[in-house]
Amino acid sequence: MPQLLARALASRESVFARMSRLAAQYGAVNLGQGFPADAPPAFLLEAARRAVGTVDQYSAPAGLPALRDAVGTDLGVDGADVVITCGATEALNVLALSLYGPGDEVLMLEPVFDVYLPQARLAGADAVTVPMTLDPVAGWSLDLDALSAAVTPRTRALLLNSPYNPTGTVFSAGELARIVEIARQHDLWIVSDEVYDELYFGDAPVPLRTLAPERTFTVGSAGKRLEATGWRVGWIACPPGLSSMLAGIRQQGSFCSPAPLQAAVAAALPVARESGFYAGLREEYAERMALLAGGLRDAGATVFTPRGTYFLTALHPTWHAETLVEHAGVAVIPGEAFYARHAAPTGLLRVAFCKSRDEIARALERLTAARNVNVP
Amino acid sequence: MPQLLARALASRESVFARMSRLAAQYGAVNLGQGFPADAPPAFLLEAARRAVGTVDQYSAPAGLPALRDAVGTDLGVDGADVVITCGATEALNVLALSLYGPGDEVLMLEPVFDVYLPQARLAGADAVTVPMTLDPVAGWSLDLDALSAAVTPRTRALLLNSPYNPTGTVFSAGELARIVEIARQHDLWIVSDEVYDELYFGDAPVPLRTLAPERTFTVGSAGKRLEATGWRVGWIACPPGLSSMLAGIRQQGSFCSPAPLQAAVAAALPVARESGFYAGLREEYAERMALLAGGLRDAGATVFTPRGTYFLTALHPTWHAETLVEHAGVAVIPGEAFYARHAAPTGLLRVAFCKSRDEIARALERLTAARNVNVP
Ligand SMILES: Cc1ncc(COP(=O)(O)O)c(C=O)c1O
Ligand SMILES: Cc1ncc(COP(=O)(O)O)c(C=O)c1O
Repeated sequence: MPQLLARALASRESVFARMSRLAAQYGAVNLGQGFPADAPPAFLLEAARRAVGTVDQYSAPAGLPALRDAVGTDLGVDGADVVITCGATEALNVLALSLYGPGDEVLMLEPVFDVYLPQARLAGADAVTVPMTLDPVAGWSLDLDALSAAVTPRTRALLLNSPYNPTGTVFSAGELARIVEIARQHDLWIVSDEVYDELYFGDAPVPLRTLAPERTFTVGSAGKRLEATGWRVGWIACPPGLSSMLAGIRQQGSFCSPAPLQAAVAAALPVARESGFYAGLREEYAERMALLAGGLRDAGATVFTPRGTYFLTALHPTWHAETLVEHAGVAVIPGEAFYARHAAPTGLLRVAFCKSRDEIARALERLTAARNVNVP
Repeated sequence: MPQLLARALASRESVFARMSRLAAQYGAVNLGQGFPADAPPAFLLEAARRAVGTVDQYSAPAGLPALRDAVGTDLGVDGADVVITCGATEALNVLALSLYGPGDEVLMLEPVFDVYLPQARLAGADAVTVPMTLDPVAGWSLDLDALSAAVTPRTRALLLNSPYNPTGTVFSAGELARIVEIARQHDLWIVSDEVYDELYFGDAPVPLRTLAPERTFTVGSAGKRLEATGWRVGWIACPPGLSSMLAGIRQQGSFCSPAPLQAAVAAALPVARESGFYAGLREEYAERMALLAGGLRDAGATVFTPRGTYFLTALHPTWHAETLVEHAGVAVIPGEAFYARHAAPTGLLRVAFCKSRDEIARALERLTAARNVNVP
């Protein structure tokens, strides 16, 4: 038999998929993968039930006009500059294929959201990563001089994420201004992965495109905003005039996004914005985050309070995600999963709080019981 | 500003998307793009309305186990060898990335389904096409010696489509046996695009995998089978043992397929099979096809009766798709859209009959009025 290509042979189950599989296998509480325990809001579900049976055929590859416009309204851009994708994952892949290729470098941070690296590889480009600094007291920070120093003549794009999975960082307006300065100086594209744009604690994040509209692609996800990660509706807000070329590449990947779910999201986005849905989500998650953080501290962890996302990061002297799932019955994501080029901080874990209070409480009980166990 | 990559600059709106856009612009009857006029069956819609609100979060990248099993049952393969994708389009893209790359050739036929060529290009491979023969009396045929002669030491895969869009060809068991012989002789993968597997007139097509299970990947689409092209649920049935590697590449493209729609398709596939839904679809489409074919003949076209798919091909001495949409108010697909390396037969058009009887009748009226108009 012929062989599969090296790029297929090298591709692996993502750590998120794997930890979810192990969680099911061991009956563990799953604080690993970032999908919420709560159902999506009723206004979204009702809109989907209406759309099924009425919007069932192909949309244009760029998406249903009503959804492009709804996203445009939310983000303050023209709907014509929005391309709808099968989740943010596809949005990021379309951008990798469109912005960098063989001989190019793309600059990103570590810890890195896992899909960025294989997507850069598939695009044929080299990923260059700059490590975030983790101080046990002050938490995570970005060394902007190191970022600037990592730019080479081959660098084509900066790929950033804020609110930041897994660190929970929200970059300040000052940091973003400096990032934009670097991008302008070296004429780089900016890919700003803002899937957690509505999931923040404290001040609202500054959207990068408002500082550099000419070069910033904003990536978003209805799955994260509306608690429906399985629906696969995401988007790219492009600098003016570029959406039709991205739609051209996007149609080769999956032609278009699920049409009835696009229609439902189009109907739901204005309701979510106007009804205070996001504010309610933030309040609820702030409480669950505090519950989880407190319990982890009681169990001996150093917790870095996140400014956004579904996750917190923590250091624990004896826990290892790989064994915790089996021996303590709690699935979390090992810090190493977010590091490929640099060493992960020892004992780093990512723990999700987009789970029910009950799941969080059960996980904390199990972890407290395991606090002194060096598993194994 | 930096530039987009050549591969993005080169990517274009597909002819299907463009003709649908022009049809809307000119108020034309749309017999172009292959999406059905009829609603999906009630058993599918009801299953989706139930799944929304219960299956809303990420599935594993390979798909919901229930759907993998339902597809496996339908195709006579193990569910573990099935990978669920965002439509057949993504299935084909995953296979391109997994089976051929730089330095490799993939052999396909012309006329060619439009997405095969850009996907091969994105994968880094060279597409080599063998033209089908079109005889005005005998219709379309495949020159198997030409196919065999086109294999080179660089050929990695054969990409075939049966029932065949746009020719309507269903390859006979004898032709398939010869194709398998060629593949075995040169140790090639076979990608068998069978999205129209249930849409045939006459004898049921022979699934290629039954003749060469060790090297055949079968591509399928719930969108085509269940009249829901916008739902984006497709699949790959793999030779044993290869599904996890394909799922690894697939998760980098869009992570997973829309989960509630996967659940709905899982529930609907056995109902469709057991209730005689496909047989009903075939009967209905056979009538609409005959209606369209008769009308086109009356309007001066030479029609090649298809053995399957949503489409027929025809030659007309004076019509051109590009002008017909504006001047006659009927959108069809120009034959040139399916040719990149060889010349399209002069006057070739693809016309869809997956439209309502009313649309077909209206289109025929308009075309009859235009029969002597050399538009423009
Ligand atoms: C930073 C980041 N980007 C992108 C994604 C993918 O989002 P989607 O589910 O819309 O593909 C995730 C999902 O966890 C994420 O955390
Ligand atoms: C031959 C062929 N393959 C694949 C596809 C794509 O199918 P899907 O809509 O499931 O992506 C089509 C759609 O027209 C087709 O005709």
